[in-house]
Amino acid sequence: MTIIEKSTLIGKPIPKLDAPSKVTGEARYLQDIELPGMLHGKILRTDRVHARILSIDTTAAKALRGVHAVITAEDTPGVPLGHGRDNPPLKGDRVRCIRDEVAAVAAESEEIAAEAVRLIKVEYEDLPAVFSPADALKEGAPVIHDAHPNNIPFTFNYDHGDIAKGERESDTIVEDTFRLHFVTHCCMGVSGIIANFDSQGMLTLYSQTQMPFLFKRDLSRIIEVPPEKIRVIQPVIGGAFGSKLDIYPFEPICIFLAKATRRPVRLVYTREEEFLASPTRQPVELTLRSGVRKDGTLTFREVSTLHDNGGHTSWGATTPFVMMQTFSSLYRAEHCRYQTTVVYTNNPYSGAFRGYGNLQATFAVESHMDKLAAAVEMNPFEFRLHNAQECGETTPQGMIFQTCGLRDCLQLATDKSDFVRKHKEYAAGQQGPVKRGIGMASLLHVGGGAKIYHTDGCGTILKIDDYAKVTVMTGSSEIGQGSETVIAQFVAEELGLGVSQVEVINNDSEIRPWDVGVHASRTTFVAGNSALRAARKARQKLLQAAGPKLDANPEDLDLRGGHVVREDTGEALLELGKLIRALHFRDKHEIVVTSEYYEPPSVMQDKEFKGNVSPTYAFGTHVAEVEVDTQTGIVRVVKVTAVHDVGRVINKLGIEGQIEGGVVMGVGYATRENLVVDAGRVMNPSFRDYKLVTAPEIPEIDIACVETMDPYGPAGAKGIGEAPSICISPAIVNAVHNATGVRFYELPLTPEKVLRTLQSAQESGE
Amino acid sequence: MTIIEKSTLIGKPIPKLDAPSKVTGEARYLQDIELPGMLHGKILRTDRVHARILSIDTTAAKALRGVHAVITAEDTPGVPLGHGRDNPPLKGDRVRCIRDEVAAVAAESEEIAAEAVRLIKVEYEDLPAVFSPADALKEGAPVIHDAHPNNIPFTFNYDHGDIAKGERESDTIVEDTFRLHFVTHCCMGVSGIIANFDSQGMLTLYSQTQMPFLFKRDLSRIIEVPPEKIRVIQPVIGGAFGSKLDIYPFEPICIFLAKATRRPVRLVYTREEEFLASPTRQPVELTLRSGVRKDGTLTFREVSTLHDNGGHTSWGATTPFVMMQTFSSLYRAEHCRYQTTVVYTNNPYSGAFRGYGNLQATFAVESHMDKLAAAVEMNPFEFRLHNAQECGETTPQGMIFQTCGLRDCLQLATDKSDFVRKHKEYAAGQQGPVKRGIGMASLLHVGGGAKIYHTDGCGTILKIDDYAKVTVMTGSSEIGQGSETVIAQFVAEELGLGVSQVEVINNDSEIRPWDVGVHASRTTFVAGNSALRAARKARQKLLQAAGPKLDANPEDLDLRGGHVVREDTGEALLELGKLIRALHFRDKHEIVVTSEYYEPPSVMQDKEFKGNVSPTYAFGTHVAEVEVDTQTGIVRVVKVTAVHDVGRVINKLGIEGQIEGGVVMGVGYATRENLVVDAGRVMNPSFRDYKLVTAPEIPEIDIACVETMDPYGPAGAKGIGEAPSICISPAIVNAVHNATGVRFYELPLTPEKVLRTLQSAQESGE
Repeated sequence: MTIIEKSTLIGKPIPKLDAPSKVTGEARYLQDIELPGMLHGKILRTDRVHARILSIDTTAAKALRGVHAVITAEDTPGVPLGHGRDNPPLKGDRVRCIRDEVAAVAAESEEIAAEAVRLIKVEYEDLPAVFSPADALKEGAPVIHDAHPNNIPFTFNYDHGDIAKGERESDTIVEDTFRLHFVTHCCMGVSGIIANFDSQGMLTLYSQTQMPFLFKRDLSRIIEVPPEKIRVIQPVIGGAFGSKLDIYPFEPICIFLAKATRRPVRLVYTREEEFLASPTRQPVELTLRSGVRKDGTLTFREVSTLHDNGGHTSWGATTPFVMMQTFSSLYRAEHCRYQTTVVYTNNPYSGAFRGYGNLQATFAVESHMDKLAAAVEMNPFEFRLHNAQECGETTPQGMIFQTCGLRDCLQLATDKSDFVRKHKEYAAGQQGPVKRGIGMASLLHVGGGAKIYHTDGCGTILKIDDYAKVTVMTGSSEIGQGSETVIAQFVAEELGLGVSQVEVINNDSEIRPWDVGVHASRTTFVAGNSALRAARKARQKLLQAAGPKLDANPEDLDLRGGHVVREDTGEALLELGKLIRALHFRDKHEIVVTSEYYEPPSVMQDKEFKGNVSPTYAFGTHVAEVEVDTQTGIVRVVKVTAVHDVGRVINKLGIEGQIEGGVVMGVGYATRENLVVDAGRVMNPSFRDYKLVTAPEIPEIDIACVETMDPYGPAGAKGIGEAPSICISPAIVNAVHNATGVRFYELPLTPEKVLRTLQSAQESGE
Repeated sequence: MTIIEKSTLIGKPIPKLDAPSKVTGEARYLQDIELPGMLHGKILRTDRVHARILSIDTTAAKALRGVHAVITAEDTPGVPLGHGRDNPPLKGDRVRCIRDEVAAVAAESEEIAAEAVRLIKVEYEDLPAVFSPADALKEGAPVIHDAHPNNIPFTFNYDHGDIAKGERESDTIVEDTFRLHFVTHCCMGVSGIIANFDSQGMLTLYSQTQMPFLFKRDLSRIIEVPPEKIRVIQPVIGGAFGSKLDIYPFEPICIFLAKATRRPVRLVYTREEEFLASPTRQPVELTLRSGVRKDGTLTFREVSTLHDNGGHTSWGATTPFVMMQTFSSLYRAEHCRYQTTVVYTNNPYSGAFRGYGNLQATFAVESHMDKLAAAVEMNPFEFRLHNAQECGETTPQGMIFQTCGLRDCLQLATDKSDFVRKHKEYAAGQQGPVKRGIGMASLLHVGGGAKIYHTDGCGTILKIDDYAKVTVMTGSSEIGQGSETVIAQFVAEELGLGVSQVEVINNDSEIRPWDVGVHASRTTFVAGNSALRAARKARQKLLQAAGPKLDANPEDLDLRGGHVVREDTGEALLELGKLIRALHFRDKHEIVVTSEYYEPPSVMQDKEFKGNVSPTYAFGTHVAEVEVDTQTGIVRVVKVTAVHDVGRVINKLGIEGQIEGGVVMGVGYATRENLVVDAGRVMNPSFRDYKLVTAPEIPEIDIACVETMDPYGPAGAKGIGEAPSICISPAIVNAVHNATGVRFYELPLTPEKVLRTLQSAQESGE
């Protein structure tokens, strides 16, 4: 008699299922896909920041041997794309920023295509340009889009409570202004697409999109192909981080080239192009004004932000949706007002980027919190704890915190890092030129999607074949975040199998069921719930079938280790494969196929931006310890203590990877990364000049997870995709302040900036 | 108000969905697939027909630059394969026929692999060989497999009634012996496979197999990889006709090469190899003895057959299962006995081939029927009609003819071809050296699979996405027979869409649900029913959802032209895509996914080979009109009238294609095709010497379908895959007899054979 003890995969460290294929080079990225007869596409971008196009001469390019098509706006329907629908794929009349597309070529090799692009002659008439929101708002500023003569495509206004009342209740009011800069995703896999029309007019796209179903819908309008004629296949994606959430001009351009040449066309960016012409994190200027009572209670928070929208409108323009959540609900603020102005400039435009505005918002709020704490002479930890939410609250913005680990995160991060003692000690003054400092910051983010469409759900189809091999066809996409592995874990757990018995199919829109896409940290929660429920249905089916076969009540049975076992004793009664074969071949002649569409219990916000937009929320606290060399200006992040309310750990390795990656990305944002845009031009489009954090700069990272067991989460889990990148930069800035007494209102903390600021502070006697 | 009239796709001529991709060259066959790092496999086959292997020297082959592996039996587990499990992939001790595999190479190109194969030195000791079943049964004949010292791996014995009684009731008894020859499939796509182990030990096979799920199971045992670690992807298949129903040695050999080299390996036959080493239709000698009463009633039928099994046992050995159906049940024969002996020889071995023994059985039965008719001085048509079954009968073998169009086929074929008049006229004698003749023959075949496994079912998963695009994931495979199109028709019909709205996914074992495979003319019936039922569930779901939305009773609604309409008036009420989007985005947040496993109402035969093995049976009558040039021996088939009971026509174009293809194959079998095997060696391994019927030899084909509306068939349909090839050769032989008065007992009717036979008949005064 074999006994199989109850065990669980949940919380175990499971290596990512796709890791071996990635480390062996087996994984096929877009760049590895060759279709028969495939041509190579290349885009001519403008070299002007704002200009009228007078003429485009493609004669020489067309005449080049090996060139199959040269297209300009004239050859396309000209339907504008992007979230703001203000950006035609190819520009016919006018260019508005340095990344604007003017013409495109399909040729037999990338080299020929590049040569053809060089042969295209464009005559321009330069127009006056504007490079800051403030300038763009000035009377008489150049108008960038005629539809918006004031250069303002969007404003957002949110409020709750009564600011005047809040002011009256305040003992102290603090006002700060913060300015955030351009950074970009730096995906290892550059942007690209392959477009292929078959002889029946069906368009297959090999695309890195994060939202295959919405991609079909949105592209359809632009390329004039019905959505049901578009198939989206995702090759292995080399990072996305939000950069692949919108449609960008290169995508329809590649499709137009395929249409023009009746050949498959691959269009892949060079690394330089990736820096010049992929989305950025949006630069924002934020002014915060908050009141506090003597006892440390926040009274009101008033925020106004000014967003540099660049020359066109992509998702970057909508980040205020997320920013306002942090303003209104990261801490209790009885009165809150938030006003945003999104302004066109002739700068590059910005898109979605991990954290989606929340890095900027949290940088401002959590820097500001330290100043408020100081104003009431409270320790930063105590001040935050005093204002932190608790489980069960509904915030004035309508967010329902079914679970809320913020206080536990604050406490644990403080304890693990010895924050209170060190903060006091470092502030008391240090000898020598290298000063130590410690700082903290917390975060609030959606933890299970954000209902910005009428559904935020994900579909699953599950089949188990006759050797107990499970195939899970999920709507959700793997973009490197580890969703495949988590989904396999949920399914394997439910069916008493190992993860290697589960194959996750997630890359073909014709096969997988519908899903919104990868955004808003939703995959573990939404796709996980969907897979879990499909697996649970299969489990029920199997136990129901096993019951009569084993002369047992299905409720007394369990699935463990590939067997049907007695729930109480663990006695293995029947191999699962045998049960499935019996069911299929002998008993009922059936196969085990189930499906599920999981819709999270969230709602769309109302016109006032209120409503429980996510079924759950993620919280976290980071403590950063730094060394500031006051002679060189070098800020070294020594250690980060990262504590996250993750609901429940599903894959220990996966969650650690996400947290480490987010911390590193945040450290880069805080200390090194800067896409230098000068008069609309990107000045450092290479990894030599755009400085990512590399191994030597990565601090020690001490990770802890608070498990609040979300009642709606799959096995209690919340999303963790974005959270770890959000609150690291204010923790660092707060630590630098703790070390030096000097506060930084802008990032990144490059040695030059730090040194200059420390010196001028010294001069001004701060 | 838009009115959409009720219309149907059933019976319409629908071009095959995969036709454009095939005619444009878009379709990717096995030969077109390149995997990164792929090597090329090549097999060394023996040049002996029966020999002991003394030594194999692979030194020189291994030393050749570009060679990655050279393997022999020693490097493999040596588990024997094939239906008889008597055939190890690589032979270590002994070769038994000319196609036997001795060693294999994987190299960087096909050329290097071929050169390496030439460098392998094998020492043999020849053994006495035997090339006919009769010789192999003789006392002291060489023993080919030690497990069968009498050289008989299988016998089959069937009987019903009492032959002695039948003899007593007979007025006339006729006995004939027929001998049938080797032919082979001549698939345009030669045999081949690609094997690829990934870094996690998962084996992906790009295989042309007709039975992906059983292939996994059967291979597993041979290659020692668990079935759940095997994924079978079918590229576009260039014809199969049964040749890809078993596992053949090249398949595990390619896998062993991939294992040895840790690289993907492609092994594709040359055309010569395809002739030398792919399965054949099995040669059979049949002796029929039948009795008839004066009134034309058949009394008994006694049959004994001798099968040349070749050196190993593949599916060819089991064709008696099908042959006996024709003996026992094509016409009413109250008493029947059938005895088969399957005999090993040192000839090539045979496999499954469209018709599966029934071409041989029907050739014999229907030649014999004409002789019986003549014996009682009845017209062949009248004689057949007198003995034909009717709808509703259960034959003594247990076959239940829920529908039976045999009489209608006989009548219609006779009427269309003016058979009775012409037969009489031609027999009366003709002037000149070119004689006209007309002949007829009928057939019985399974029309909806054959339950030779415990299930004969097929699974379907169906999803409809938000633009009313339907994906049908079917277990069934497209091997050129048009199943994709028929499945799309059933689904489109049920959902009121066009076939172009339906995508059929049918090539990946990880995605599609279980299916037995393509055999026994089962796909339209079984996979069709499965798809139809899955679509019906989706239809119900959609109408149930539409009802409340439209304030209507779902039963008063219909789906037509992509809309929900009022059943009675056809008034278009709601676009289907809109309904699905509403259901998904607004109402219930659900997606439309359904699944089905359809098991046909057939049973496995008992030990006496009795039982209703198929849910339905196909019938047909062919009339052939020929011209025999008595000076050259050339038989020209002028016209074939092909009438089939197809249950119901689903795709008019598809069914015509199947019937035309079957007739052409049958004409080839009757008049031209012959795999010449001399002392175990294939003498004509090329299309120059193996003469297929080509365009100039194709007769006029007059097709008619009898629609008996099968109660279990999807929309009333039966399978048509094999039937059209079955009864053409006896119709031709009967026509030649009608023209010349000379009967042929062997095929093919080559000019040499015809001339010689006519001359010797003349000499003997026949």
